[in-house]
Amino acid sequence: MAPLPVSPLAPAHQPELPAIAGCRFAAVEAGVRYKGRRDVLLAEFAAGTTVAGVLTRNQMPGAPIDWCRQHLPAGRARGLVVNAGNANVFTGAKGHTACTETAAAAAGQLGCAPAEIMLASTGVIGEPLPYERIVAALPAAQAGLSGNAWADAARAIMTTDTFPKAATRTANIRGVPVRINGIAKGSGMIAPDMATMLSFVVTDAKIPADVLQALLTRTVARTFNAITVDSDTSTSDTLMLFATGQVSHAAIEGPGEPALRDFRAKLEDLLKDLALQVVRDGEGAQKLIEITVTGAASERAARRIALAIADSPLVKTAIAGQDANWGRIVMAVGKSGQKADRDRLAIDIGGVAVARDGARVEGFDEAPVAAHMKGQEIKIAVDVGIGSGRSTVWTCDLTHGYIDINADYRS
Amino acid sequence: MAPLPVSPLAPAHQPELPAIAGCRFAAVEAGVRYKGRRDVLLAEFAAGTTVAGVLTRNQMPGAPIDWCRQHLPAGRARGLVVNAGNANVFTGAKGHTACTETAAAAAGQLGCAPAEIMLASTGVIGEPLPYERIVAALPAAQAGLSGNAWADAARAIMTTDTFPKAATRTANIRGVPVRINGIAKGSGMIAPDMATMLSFVVTDAKIPADVLQALLTRTVARTFNAITVDSDTSTSDTLMLFATGQVSHAAIEGPGEPALRDFRAKLEDLLKDLALQVVRDGEGAQKLIEITVTGAASERAARRIALAIADSPLVKTAIAGQDANWGRIVMAVGKSGQKADRDRLAIDIGGVAVARDGARVEGFDEAPVAAHMKGQEIKIAVDVGIGSGRSTVWTCDLTHGYIDINADYRS
Repeated sequence: MAPLPVSPLAPAHQPELPAIAGCRFAAVEAGVRYKGRRDVLLAEFAAGTTVAGVLTRNQMPGAPIDWCRQHLPAGRARGLVVNAGNANVFTGAKGHTACTETAAAAAGQLGCAPAEIMLASTGVIGEPLPYERIVAALPAAQAGLSGNAWADAARAIMTTDTFPKAATRTANIRGVPVRINGIAKGSGMIAPDMATMLSFVVTDAKIPADVLQALLTRTVARTFNAITVDSDTSTSDTLMLFATGQVSHAAIEGPGEPALRDFRAKLEDLLKDLALQVVRDGEGAQKLIEITVTGAASERAARRIALAIADSPLVKTAIAGQDANWGRIVMAVGKSGQKADRDRLAIDIGGVAVARDGARVEGFDEAPVAAHMKGQEIKIAVDVGIGSGRSTVWTCDLTHGYIDINADYRS
Repeated sequence: MAPLPVSPLAPAHQPELPAIAGCRFAAVEAGVRYKGRRDVLLAEFAAGTTVAGVLTRNQMPGAPIDWCRQHLPAGRARGLVVNAGNANVFTGAKGHTACTETAAAAAGQLGCAPAEIMLASTGVIGEPLPYERIVAALPAAQAGLSGNAWADAARAIMTTDTFPKAATRTANIRGVPVRINGIAKGSGMIAPDMATMLSFVVTDAKIPADVLQALLTRTVARTFNAITVDSDTSTSDTLMLFATGQVSHAAIEGPGEPALRDFRAKLEDLLKDLALQVVRDGEGAQKLIEITVTGAASERAARRIALAIADSPLVKTAIAGQDANWGRIVMAVGKSGQKADRDRLAIDIGGVAVARDGARVEGFDEAPVAAHMKGQEIKIAVDVGIGSGRSTVWTCDLTHGYIDINADYRS
């Protein structure tokens, strides 16, 4: 399959990520599936690095998910090995062996326990992972470890992505600046919880693993778990947050303490940035769609309604056709199964009221709505007239490009 | 929008439906939305006709759904008015007026109570129904009523359908032959419960309304509620079963009685025939897909897993690409949220075992599977290794044709 053109929704420029003390990367060519590109990422973390993670809820998880689910609770990480091209999913006992052998090899090189090596794989499902190729590539990777390889790392984990995804923020913990860098991959099989999505975030702050986990869990609901491309939830989704602890600041005791306010905000901002980059690279995406539901019975109900709209093929194709087809939005609200008052339903598109009290707004001005639909960023707001629950989700349109990519690529 | 080419999955020939005593139809041009085609259907039923119905579970139902939900429980029908082009959904108080005025006019002509007139509308959402045009067309419709207008009736209710859908069966009740005819429309916004689908079935048997309702409810789960095109549930779905009682057979007392065995079987067969015709006309469909899930915790769990597979855009696009991408089937089973044993999962495609015990079958013969994927009818069987629940659903593939139709048509 020919390389895909870069998404029209790609950010105008890629951020440059600064080095983070206690974290080095190398990306190498292992030939797992692709030829002529770097497809394995090795990361090395300083002693004392803590880790938190959020893993797919798909009931058919890959072997690397099993591995991380087993070892994440200890909260310690010294290394990370990621490959693209083969997801090591539905590979039976061989999948488990691939994990233990890869982790053992990486641990031997980095001088730590295998349980301190985190693993992630993405790509085709159901084919045994040729882990020997990964193991064989690790010495070269170790030799190439660098604090300035973030751009290489972002590229190494790509599959059908059309651009690498990275973001960086600086936060302040009790007057001390700390850095947060993140990279992500993902463009299809994207749905909560979570996307077909790998994301690795590293900070030089010193945060205990349980606090790190609480921060990540809280933040992911409004970021990576609020995006959907095609409603299909991957078997490999992995988001990990590593804290190398290389910056000296006063000790952190709990996730809610005021000293973490800025860190929490910057972390959420960074995760939202990465999540929206994934949607912007949604397979075939021509438009980024933001859907805000208010007036629902609860935040959970609002989110379900918003996702019913976001995942509706009829809504997504209408937007691809630049048609402000709000009737399909009504249909999607109704199919969500959540409480909504048909006779109080209100819909705004691009800030223009198109429906109020369960009917079209008589004589609303179609011109600004039509102009909005021609843009790259579509905003839909729906009030369902029941309560005060609200939620925002992001998705993209459903186009011929999605069919092209997915009728061809064996994932 | 140019007329769509007839679906490649259309049946080779249309059945000829015989007259049914006590039932006459007429289809007329009312110009509700389309020009130059019959868009309003009037049906007249003999005195004593009983009726049962199944209506959409979408929480934003159209005004005709409200009307039928109010009047169906009485179980009596003397007339039916159906229009295409405007669904009379999300039309507020005007939608209610359109129903009462249409029913009153039809009742006046047919000499019955308005509550004995059933209504259904399909087409665009959110625009007031120009019911005056329907009312104005009713006298011509009444003048044209005929027992042999089934083909006209099937055509009059079409929207994006590319072929009219009809079926007929003969059943035996205590040695007396009775007829069952049915027509249906629907091609997109098709998902349980139910499809964007209208279907009207008429028999000359004499069956009390409560028995009729029990028969219909029982049968619909395995027929119309087992199909999906795009997971989008319409606001207008309506299935009605009318029994004119013009054939003399011994009285029927309950839905389970042995005398109804043949009638039940033929009714299910007819409804399945119509439901599969709807899938065969799925927007852009190139392939009919049958998905059977076994080994689930319950029938309900099996149905949810089957629907997760059937509604997965990644599974549907893979099949469009003639790719036996069973990895995506694994993903869809896992995203269903239902219990399944990853390490016992088994998948057959076209009768060939491709996965057993949670892994690819080593060295399975790809040739017959590849040949099967090139055909028009794809069979997928999945055993999830938990219990004895089983369910079969039908869907179609997701192709460029779906995008073409839905990025253009305002429904």
